[in-house]
Amino acid sequence: MIGAGFAGLSAVRHLRGQPVEVTIVDHHNFHTFQPLLYQVATAGLDPADVAYPVRTIFGREANVVFRHGRAESVDMETRRVVLADGGSLDYDRLVVATGATTGFFAVPGAARYSLPLYTLADARRLRNHILGCLEAADARPEDFDDGAPTFVVVGGGATGVEMSGALVELLDVAVRRDRLRIDPHRSRVILLEAGDRLLSGFKQEASRYAAQTLLARRVDVRLRTPVAEVSKDGVRLGDQWMKAAAVIWAGGVTVDGTLAASLPIAHGRGGRVTLEPDLTVTGHPEVFVVGDAAAVPWGPSRPEACPQVAQVAIQSGAHAARQIVRQIAGQRTSPFAYHDKGLMATIGRHAAVAQLRRGPIWRGTIGWLAWLGLHLVYLVGFRNRAVVLINWWWRYLDWPSGPRLIVADVEADL
Amino acid sequence: MIGAGFAGLSAVRHLRGQPVEVTIVDHHNFHTFQPLLYQVATAGLDPADVAYPVRTIFGREANVVFRHGRAESVDMETRRVVLADGGSLDYDRLVVATGATTGFFAVPGAARYSLPLYTLADARRLRNHILGCLEAADARPEDFDDGAPTFVVVGGGATGVEMSGALVELLDVAVRRDRLRIDPHRSRVILLEAGDRLLSGFKQEASRYAAQTLLARRVDVRLRTPVAEVSKDGVRLGDQWMKAAAVIWAGGVTVDGTLAASLPIAHGRGGRVTLEPDLTVTGHPEVFVVGDAAAVPWGPSRPEACPQVAQVAIQSGAHAARQIVRQIAGQRTSPFAYHDKGLMATIGRHAAVAQLRRGPIWRGTIGWLAWLGLHLVYLVGFRNRAVVLINWWWRYLDWPSGPRLIVADVEADL
Repeated sequence: MIGAGFAGLSAVRHLRGQPVEVTIVDHHNFHTFQPLLYQVATAGLDPADVAYPVRTIFGREANVVFRHGRAESVDMETRRVVLADGGSLDYDRLVVATGATTGFFAVPGAARYSLPLYTLADARRLRNHILGCLEAADARPEDFDDGAPTFVVVGGGATGVEMSGALVELLDVAVRRDRLRIDPHRSRVILLEAGDRLLSGFKQEASRYAAQTLLARRVDVRLRTPVAEVSKDGVRLGDQWMKAAAVIWAGGVTVDGTLAASLPIAHGRGGRVTLEPDLTVTGHPEVFVVGDAAAVPWGPSRPEACPQVAQVAIQSGAHAARQIVRQIAGQRTSPFAYHDKGLMATIGRHAAVAQLRRGPIWRGTIGWLAWLGLHLVYLVGFRNRAVVLINWWWRYLDWPSGPRLIVADVEADL
Repeated sequence: MIGAGFAGLSAVRHLRGQPVEVTIVDHHNFHTFQPLLYQVATAGLDPADVAYPVRTIFGREANVVFRHGRAESVDMETRRVVLADGGSLDYDRLVVATGATTGFFAVPGAARYSLPLYTLADARRLRNHILGCLEAADARPEDFDDGAPTFVVVGGGATGVEMSGALVELLDVAVRRDRLRIDPHRSRVILLEAGDRLLSGFKQEASRYAAQTLLARRVDVRLRTPVAEVSKDGVRLGDQWMKAAAVIWAGGVTVDGTLAASLPIAHGRGGRVTLEPDLTVTGHPEVFVVGDAAAVPWGPSRPEACPQVAQVAIQSGAHAARQIVRQIAGQRTSPFAYHDKGLMATIGRHAAVAQLRRGPIWRGTIGWLAWLGLHLVYLVGFRNRAVVLINWWWRYLDWPSGPRLIVADVEADL
């Protein structure tokens, strides 16, 4: 089992107590609850609220072992995973759940100058940078055009929408509660989307609601605005430069550059691994690829790839685990079928959209409560859930004391 | 006001609502509750549990302003503080509460190779390193002499005692709960103290109790054992090298190298600023130095310096604030007198020593509960207190899920 994301954890869960020895490998010693990373980046939650040690999750499972390390390559002929620290692991069956990575899509300067939001380290770096900008604007407003920082968010998917909604809330708290001397009418959050609507995976109605809500909260939403280049000082749109204190990259993900992309098998768009209907690799019934790393087919009669979302990761991981149990029992594997439970995105307090497979779209406070409840249910482990509840509760009561800390690994970086 | 440690916060608290405009400067945007840093280092608490944003603390005080920045120098003639970012602040009255820094006391290699525990960044780095060692020992025991890591703690003061007590508890949890394949009889914690007893500021009885308790918990306590040198691989004692996976430096603090030491005034041992009885600088009744940075006199009839502990910082900060109020009211300043409330150190669960000024020493579970209660009371802000309570409660209930995360700022560092 490579990867302790949603797909990997889900697979391991379904192998608990089965007649198999499971080793789960990850170069992080924790699982990251990625849907809430934007809250870490905007100082609403602590890093530890959205991360959970793998050993704690499976500490009581006799047939599960964690190996901390980075899987570097897989030799499918000898059935061996080679790790970056020189170790290796032999397998009878392998589940590759290595996920994706930030996709910069060859936009010049993006990889170097923009701040992605995909890992916990990304979220922490982003938080330090944003809070640092606000303090700098308080201390030396003359360093900024307009006397206040402009934040540009690139990408109008769920991450970009959630990030820009949370950013305006953070700005509000910074001015109103922390009394930072920043003119709220001068500090701007600009959301850039190349396509013609936000939340393109959602229904039109949800997209409209998201755009209207963000505009009402003073996010400058710009559709049909692709970014041509990123520099240290801002972004280029067509041939015009726009200054920004931070360029936050929520432009999408790719599998290129990850372990899954390096496997000597067929790959689809964005490097996603092409699979058999049962989620195995062609010619290797002992190798499964699940989650974001794979082009997971919707179902036997719908070969197109599912979106790279948590639900698909969780379901595909579970499917792989069940097929392994079947294989060991000498049974035939069955094809995967995705059960679309809907999509959700939050825009801020009292504003979210929840789109179920059938029926109306939930939005506003109802949508927000649905979003909140679902995320709490899915958060791994009770302790985290209790702490997240406390944090959110306080945040709801006017956010008196979020963890707005600027903490670097190295003192000299401050 | 320079510095948002115990002394600086205490001074600002006593100036709330007074007819003064207070600016508090710190290069961290948060106050650190230093007495609990060792718990962050051993993954019992999160960084945010022991750190609290200064703006949150004083967000409602109309006469208090926070300035994020590093004070680089003070010109006492023109009454100006110069900041590292090029800004400056003019003052009528100044309170220097810049604290101390880790003292390596010219031990070769100590500054470079040992891991100090003085700032929040130190604590996080230490945690990443310790947890990383444990994972490495699980994955590649052959990399370690004896097949398991040895941790050396240098310095038998409160920090060293608390750190080594917490380290053996972490090792126990790592093996018992996280099922790391480390032989608990091979992985060692060694506490080195140059003097002839631990907790030298305490009574003999407390020192003996601490040593006995640590020994019973399998900490290898070595008195009269000064460290001659530190290298990447361990420490040298006399002419013998001892291998260690980590050398944790709890050897003491110094004011040398800090802003206070650079002031053109008299300094005592360790660079501490020599003061008038009212805590002002000789010839500058408008400049106060308080907390660890100063050689705070015990009282009018006892000119010797108080120890560098939180109680002295809190009381001296408050005293400076009261004298400023008196000065402004045209009254004479009064001399400082330290009210020694006692000392406390914890060794682990159910084991602490609390030494009141009079009466018996509290120890064992009673001492531990006293220590726990006092620290909760002193922790700034309700939210932190609630979260710390939850963390401790869980820890007490067999520590199922401490925040044992290895999180770096840079992914590549993992």
